[in-house]
Amino acid sequence: MENFIFANPVKIIFGKDTIKNIANEIPKNNKILIVYGRGSIKKNGVYDQVIAALKGHEVHEFSGIEPNPHYETCMKAAAFIKDKKLDYVLAVGGGSVIDAVKFIVAAAYFEIGDPWIIISEHAEIKRALPFGAILTLPATGSEMNAGSVITRAETHDKISFNSPLIYPKFAVLDPTTTYSLPAKQIGNGIADAFVHVIEQYLTYYTGDSMLQDYMAEAILKTLVNEGPKALESPTDYDVRANLMWASTWALNGWINCGVPQDWATHMIGHEITAFYGIDHAQTLAIVLPGVMTVLRNQKAKKIIRLGREVFGINMESKDNAINQTIKVVENFFEKIGIKTHLSDYNLGDEAIEKVSNRLAQRGWKLGEVRNITADTVKEILTLRK
Amino acid sequence: MENFIFANPVKIIFGKDTIKNIANEIPKNNKILIVYGRGSIKKNGVYDQVIAALKGHEVHEFSGIEPNPHYETCMKAAAFIKDKKLDYVLAVGGGSVIDAVKFIVAAAYFEIGDPWIIISEHAEIKRALPFGAILTLPATGSEMNAGSVITRAETHDKISFNSPLIYPKFAVLDPTTTYSLPAKQIGNGIADAFVHVIEQYLTYYTGDSMLQDYMAEAILKTLVNEGPKALESPTDYDVRANLMWASTWALNGWINCGVPQDWATHMIGHEITAFYGIDHAQTLAIVLPGVMTVLRNQKAKKIIRLGREVFGINMESKDNAINQTIKVVENFFEKIGIKTHLSDYNLGDEAIEKVSNRLAQRGWKLGEVRNITADTVKEILTLRK
Repeated sequence: MENFIFANPVKIIFGKDTIKNIANEIPKNNKILIVYGRGSIKKNGVYDQVIAALKGHEVHEFSGIEPNPHYETCMKAAAFIKDKKLDYVLAVGGGSVIDAVKFIVAAAYFEIGDPWIIISEHAEIKRALPFGAILTLPATGSEMNAGSVITRAETHDKISFNSPLIYPKFAVLDPTTTYSLPAKQIGNGIADAFVHVIEQYLTYYTGDSMLQDYMAEAILKTLVNEGPKALESPTDYDVRANLMWASTWALNGWINCGVPQDWATHMIGHEITAFYGIDHAQTLAIVLPGVMTVLRNQKAKKIIRLGREVFGINMESKDNAINQTIKVVENFFEKIGIKTHLSDYNLGDEAIEKVSNRLAQRGWKLGEVRNITADTVKEILTLRK
Repeated sequence: MENFIFANPVKIIFGKDTIKNIANEIPKNNKILIVYGRGSIKKNGVYDQVIAALKGHEVHEFSGIEPNPHYETCMKAAAFIKDKKLDYVLAVGGGSVIDAVKFIVAAAYFEIGDPWIIISEHAEIKRALPFGAILTLPATGSEMNAGSVITRAETHDKISFNSPLIYPKFAVLDPTTTYSLPAKQIGNGIADAFVHVIEQYLTYYTGDSMLQDYMAEAILKTLVNEGPKALESPTDYDVRANLMWASTWALNGWINCGVPQDWATHMIGHEITAFYGIDHAQTLAIVLPGVMTVLRNQKAKKIIRLGREVFGINMESKDNAINQTIKVVENFFEKIGIKTHLSDYNLGDEAIEKVSNRLAQRGWKLGEVRNITADTVKEILTLRK
């Protein structure tokens, strides 16, 4: 096990009918900005619950956060906060809204230039407004971590940043708020959480971080068991609760303590989304089987273990076990409604060229041992045509 | 899954040679009290590392914290803090030292009477000095939770209390500090951590908290795999690291979110320790197989699942699976060097009478559905003669 330092201070408020509790979490005299997306919270009752809970506060609103939230949109919200001298932000939505708020609270009082450098140059954040999150879509884990991914529309950049100052003060997870989500969003969320765990688990085999491996498998098994049920029975409370809690744990920082991490699938996927607007989870479902195939030797022991522990694959031949595990992962994505090949999204050689060129430009070497170059990316994507 | 609210802010500093990092965690001008036990830290080099790390601070010492730390001892430390106007406490040791410090920091400035009422009446703590922990014995999980168990020697009371104000600000977990521990203490620590998980897992079957169950099994499997190895190879870093991390997770509050909890084994065990001074872990190893036997119907599904998932027991007959699982749990304790019957400690009918009478006096009903009365305790202990 490698040395590590970690803390995660987010207060989780979990369960049915818990939105009303936010009144206890926000200082009484604070002026609040509610940030949300395209208005689904007005249809499913969440908005009304939030407004009722905040009675007595001065409340402002900023809506229209898009999926893969845009720098440009966030900057408008930051200006609004500064103008109105607001004290506290409440993100109401899924990972995009929460990620946007993380950038907004950091950008509002950023004083050493264009806040874009927080993302592009990882400029240090010295101050951020406090904020809470009401999660309505289990997927990204943003509700309990200190990371965010922001897209700059004009340059097709989709890049992550993080800072201990952007942990939510609290996160409300009410599984009933997810009942009305479209199947596509639930499927995307399951895939996103699944790949988060994979990025922190499916690496070269260190064999010495037993608890972290078992915990990663605990989350994967929950997602694999409950994912399809969540699609079949959208109002089964326990299934939605298990899914929501597993998605949070997929990226709250504990399972990666002291272990190597990959993240190549995400990095490649981000470029596909930035160029073509394909859903984040869809890009992951395209890329991951390719990464597993090309890196099959380096990741052999963990791929076999994933197959055995999570999907019940037991095969004498290591090669067959690896092939079967890659296949079953691909099938899992298809089962939750996500197509897994570039051609399913009308993408082909041009996209492969564009994405691998962009990664060559960035000069990034990806994966847990930094051996995935632009050429490897081309190889990976060519397998996924 | 039941609703829950939870946060755990403890900063974990994990790994080889990490004690030196405490300098970054304690405010520069603070006057510090180092609290420790009976001096083993002076033999294994930990004391020297702590003193070196705190260079430049005004440092005082309070030693002599006993296993099952005494109220009487803690009160002396609290008076010392008040007298010297100290700002920060550093617990260096195992769970007893950390538990003691939790009471000391709460008692030092307690203003509404004898601090014993924090324990006896769960009087609210309004203020506590900040403190950090350097863990040298993986066992109780106290390094990452907000609970403490204190013994009042004169009245044979051993009682727990908790408060969000008694979370350590940081905890240093350096597995190499455990190399020199006697086998008995390692064995006791494994058993303690094992039973912590069991208390939060082996309850009536709710079947609806999938991630929590898998996570509990992740910790149990780590303890069962690594425990015996830790005894055979005391300086195997990865084994000691896995054990230390699993012990912390056994009681850091996350696996019990939204699930029923038992704690009867601990409550009964505390009374045995309070009367007879038997080690905490020894009492757990005596009591747990009795609890599992008497509550076998209520806990049937979970006992069978424990046997299957953690110990690899697969049997057609449910009765046999339960019997076999109880047996294998008992064997596990024996394998790590802990005797499991009252007679092994020269205790018998008198002890059974005394402990069950004390619980009758207290009027507590124990277990996850509060159906374990003093009579049930007598039945449990009679099985363990």
